[in-house]
Amino acid sequence: MNDKVTAVRDVWRYEQGEISKVEDRMVTEFPLTVILNGSEFVTLVCTPEHIEELVIGFLASEGVIRFQKEIKRFTIDESLGFVYVDLVHPETLDQKDYTKRVIGSCCGKGRHFYFQQDVKTAKTAVSQIKISPEACLALMKDMQQGSGTFQDTGGVHNAALCDTEKLLLMRTDIGRHNALDKLYGHCLLNGMSVRDKLIVFSGRISSEVLLKAAKIGVSIVISKSAPTELAIQMAEELNITAIGFVRNGSFNVYTHPERIRE
Amino acid sequence: MNDKVTAVRDVWRYEQGEISKVEDRMVTEFPLTVILNGSEFVTLVCTPEHIEELVIGFLASEGVIRFQKEIKRFTIDESLGFVYVDLVHPETLDQKDYTKRVIGSCCGKGRHFYFQQDVKTAKTAVSQIKISPEACLALMKDMQQGSGTFQDTGGVHNAALCDTEKLLLMRTDIGRHNALDKLYGHCLLNGMSVRDKLIVFSGRISSEVLLKAAKIGVSIVISKSAPTELAIQMAEELNITAIGFVRNGSFNVYTHPERIRE
Repeated sequence: MNDKVTAVRDVWRYEQGEISKVEDRMVTEFPLTVILNGSEFVTLVCTPEHIEELVIGFLASEGVIRFQKEIKRFTIDESLGFVYVDLVHPETLDQKDYTKRVIGSCCGKGRHFYFQQDVKTAKTAVSQIKISPEACLALMKDMQQGSGTFQDTGGVHNAALCDTEKLLLMRTDIGRHNALDKLYGHCLLNGMSVRDKLIVFSGRISSEVLLKAAKIGVSIVISKSAPTELAIQMAEELNITAIGFVRNGSFNVYTHPERIRE
Repeated sequence: MNDKVTAVRDVWRYEQGEISKVEDRMVTEFPLTVILNGSEFVTLVCTPEHIEELVIGFLASEGVIRFQKEIKRFTIDESLGFVYVDLVHPETLDQKDYTKRVIGSCCGKGRHFYFQQDVKTAKTAVSQIKISPEACLALMKDMQQGSGTFQDTGGVHNAALCDTEKLLLMRTDIGRHNALDKLYGHCLLNGMSVRDKLIVFSGRISSEVLLKAAKIGVSIVISKSAPTELAIQMAEELNITAIGFVRNGSFNVYTHPERIRE
């Protein structure tokens, strides 16, 4: 267990009418501020491991970079929680765009998108992979069994990149989006292809989660939990198979069921 | 059931080796952009009910306003998802402060704070209320039984404002922070005092959730789920009693147990 990721504290436990002092392990939170080309860009509150993956994945997900080679300098100051990133071509950065609201459809994508940056960076899935129902159940089980921090603290989300048969990479974070960004960053840093890969996720499929998956470039998202209607509309449009409520040997397929093998 | 809050779609259900088409109800997501004094301020992705409470609560939580009377104009365009807010004194708004990182301690608050705005707006609790263990358990049960949307969709978070004996007000949202902002907005819009009140919450106690509770001004936060260590450090410092893992007749008290009645 990484001792930056969890901490032990005294707590007062109430049980069967009695209060007693016990030790409890809880997950830490680490505020990490990204200074991009000399200006404060964002503060991510995260689980302090795989920080480089997180920042690279976040910047790619926001459309700031597409490849690691676009970064000239990357320095982490872990004691203060700052990351300094300088781009090779800083002049391409148009910061005002990043959280700009889209009204109506544009760039060939539909009315479900609400940020301009998402319209540019979310990819329509083209993979024709198929997965068996048994593999959907097995991948979720493997991910949950693999998460030591969750079993210890109950306070984190897990995301795993998989092929149709096995887990390839798992990342954990207190922030659901951060866990996905770490997967993305890992792929970019290691030249790992996402072609024909899928994501298994412990949290809900919100529109933001679905968009992250589309930006990473997978074609199937499998969640333990519920989707939102907006996420399902986006999945429909981006040709992504969204699977939810994977529990007790059953699940729901919300979009593009042609990727489920009969 | 408010039909803007959930929607029904066809899904493919896998169960006991068979796939069948069934109807499923899921929660909607609504992108809501706040235009403050003519400029785009934020886009909140929310459950589209109690929108005025949400925006007022969010602006107060961000330190933009302290009272409703500081707002000159408040117009909602529900079809496009825009809210137009004009302040009586727009010149007091210093937008660059809102997400500015704090380094080290300042303004008399400790090193656990990471945004300048939080240092200004999070209040140290002064209430000396006490709550019985039985009331902690009962309030959580009442909140969970009161949430129709959750029972239908599994996709939302609930927050309730309570006194030490009963639920006074409950709000639901796909965004955890939004549910808290709606409570705050309701209090501001209706002149409801938070003195000696507490919050019961379905989600984790992250640092952001703890800060929201401190900004609203309650002295006890009761969660069904886990806290993070940073949230507990903040609760310690802000004199807030943090209670988590309320389930199966037991719970943990993380800070300021003096508010638990023996």
